[in-house]
Amino acid sequence: MTTWLPTLKTKTPEEGYDLAVKMARVAVKLTQPDAEVRDRLRPKYAEDSAALIASSQVVATHFATVAAANGYWADA
Amino acid sequence: MTTWLPTLKTKTPEEGYDLAVKMARVAVKLTQPDAEVRDRLRPKYAEDSAALIASSQVVATHFATVAAANGYWADA
Amino acid sequence: MTTWLPTLKTKTPEEGYDLAVKMARVAVKLTQPDAEVRDRLRPKYAEDSAALIASSQVVATHFATVAAANGYWADA
Amino acid sequence: MTTWLPTLKTKTPEEGYDLAVKMARVAVKLTQPDAEVRDRLRPKYAEDSAALIASSQVVATHFATVAAANGYWADA
Amino acid sequence: MTTWLPTLKTKTPEEGYDLAVKMARVAVKLTQPDAEVRDRLRPKYAEDSAALIASSQVVATHFATVAAANGYWADA
Amino acid sequence: MTTWLPTLKTKTPEEGYDLAVKMARVAVKLTQPDAEVRDRLRPKYAEDSAALIASSQVVATHFATVAAANGYWADA
Repeated sequence: MTTWLPTLKTKTPEEGYDLAVKMARVAVKLTQPDAEVRDRLRPKYAEDSAALIASSQVVATHFATVAAANGYWADA
Repeated sequence: MTTWLPTLKTKTPEEGYDLAVKMARVAVKLTQPDAEVRDRLRPKYAEDSAALIASSQVVATHFATVAAANGYWADA
Repeated sequence: MTTWLPTLKTKTPEEGYDLAVKMARVAVKLTQPDAEVRDRLRPKYAEDSAALIASSQVVATHFATVAAANGYWADA
Repeated sequence: MTTWLPTLKTKTPEEGYDLAVKMARVAVKLTQPDAEVRDRLRPKYAEDSAALIASSQVVATHFATVAAANGYWADA
Repeated sequence: MTTWLPTLKTKTPEEGYDLAVKMARVAVKLTQPDAEVRDRLRPKYAEDSAALIASSQVVATHFATVAAANGYWADA
Repeated sequence: MTTWLPTLKTKTPEEGYDLAVKMARVAVKLTQPDAEVRDRLRPKYAEDSAALIASSQVVATHFATVAAANGYWADA
């Protein structure tokens, strides 16, 4: 897990968004390292509106950081 | 899905708000890629106050980022 | 809905707060466009502490953006 | 309600904190304008840990804005 | 309660973190001023994961403010 | 506990992320200092999607602070 986040810089806003998604997921992995358990939880929460929205909130928070780190992709 | 977020720049605050709404929804799609499941969930959460407010919170977080990216539309 | 958010500038902090309240509500409308459903939900959530506090959280997030957009109303 | 928020400036951090508390409460009042209902809800949520913590979260968000507006009270 | 928050400045990041914890708790006290009630609630929520995580979220929000107020302790 | 947070500076974004995870956990420890209770709660919440996502949210908030403190690791 030493190289999953080498930089906050991305070429485009989309890539920044994808990075934010990744950053949201890593915290879950660190708290629940057992992939089998996560696989078991996934179908349930993927059908749970509250969980989906809460996940989207985490992505939004990370995206704010990534966007700032990229100067909001001023040239895009 | 390669071009859904080409830039954070928008001409007006309203367009920035609409973009924030879109950004909130994309994270849900990435977590629950099955459109059929999302369509099944939608009517339920659209009648659930807590879910509606939580969605609005995600929009608010993304809007903060979009607004900063646009210099708060200083000329508007 | 093209002109509900022409600018983030307001003359006073109070007007900025009112704008934040409006911004919080618009996201709910966009997710649940049916006014009848919203009217049906309203009395229930207006008596639900958790929903009231969650709404206040959304307002706080939007107010942070509006306040920044107004330079915190430095002359006020 | 025209003068409840004349400025975000406060003399001290404590006063800024008190203002943040006020700002958190006003949104609740705007959503539930009936004082009688709010009085009825209050004892319940004042004994509800989740509600107390959620309220504290709203205060924290508003305090961030008030603190920024005051340059973090640099001389304090 | 007039002097609990004389400044946001702290000598070290740890002291800033402790201040953030204090700031999170004061809002709870202001909403539920009865120490006896708070003492009664405490054991329950201290065994409630959701409440513990929500408290940690409030601390995180206040810490962001305290850290900014201290220029992120640039010399630390 | 006097030296757990000597600085917000980290060499890499990953180390900053790990620090954010640590910062999220310390608040839980301060509210529930009994390690035995925390150990008892852990397995339950590690299988609770809502708790995992909420934890990830706290990490995201702390990471925003750590990233800002590090100038977003401009050279990374």
